[in-house]
Amino acid sequence: MIVVVGHLKIPPEKMGEARQGIRAVVSGTVKEPGCLLYAFSEDALEPGTIRIAEKWESWETLKAHGATPHLAAWRAALKAIGLRDREVIAYEAGETRPL
Amino acid sequence: MIVVVGHLKIPPEKMGEARQGIRAVVSGTVKEPGCLLYAFSEDALEPGTIRIAEKWESWETLKAHGATPHLAAWRAALKAIGLRDREVIAYEAGETRPL
Repeated sequence: MIVVVGHLKIPPEKMGEARQGIRAVVSGTVKEPGCLLYAFSEDALEPGTIRIAEKWESWETLKAHGATPHLAAWRAALKAIGLRDREVIAYEAGETRPL
Repeated sequence: MIVVVGHLKIPPEKMGEARQGIRAVVSGTVKEPGCLLYAFSEDALEPGTIRIAEKWESWETLKAHGATPHLAAWRAALKAIGLRDREVIAYEAGETRPL
């Protein structure tokens, strides 16, 4: 399984606008083959920081996600909103422990 | 490295109260040895769903976090707030790819 953790930073006053784009990309992505989790959230302490959490069955399904039109639309929306910073990293899951 | 992804569900109207507890546990945790990321965020589409993202240098540093007084205080606060659901899973990071 692949676990993705990341963040985006946008102007805090644009969060409402971002939410519309998030709704569209999430609703498209959760129907993709191999998508186990796809969630966007707003940091509880840092306004304007959007956190990303994803789980995918494989590198292949994650790669296919990268070529979807809903992801392209979301990236275009983010650019229009004013993306200030971005870090998104995928990890292949090894030993797994429920906490 | 260990990556932790999880969520908590609380009554949506308690998010403000939760934020106070989050501020305390985050400020305590980011000072812990081996803590690389420790963030709580509110799902952009599901009010009352708090998402957790953590990165730790090792299983040992994550285990030590589990015994800290600030985590115990946060757990007590969550119980008082009314925790409805919880899933938190730690993964040892294998192959890593920036996206």
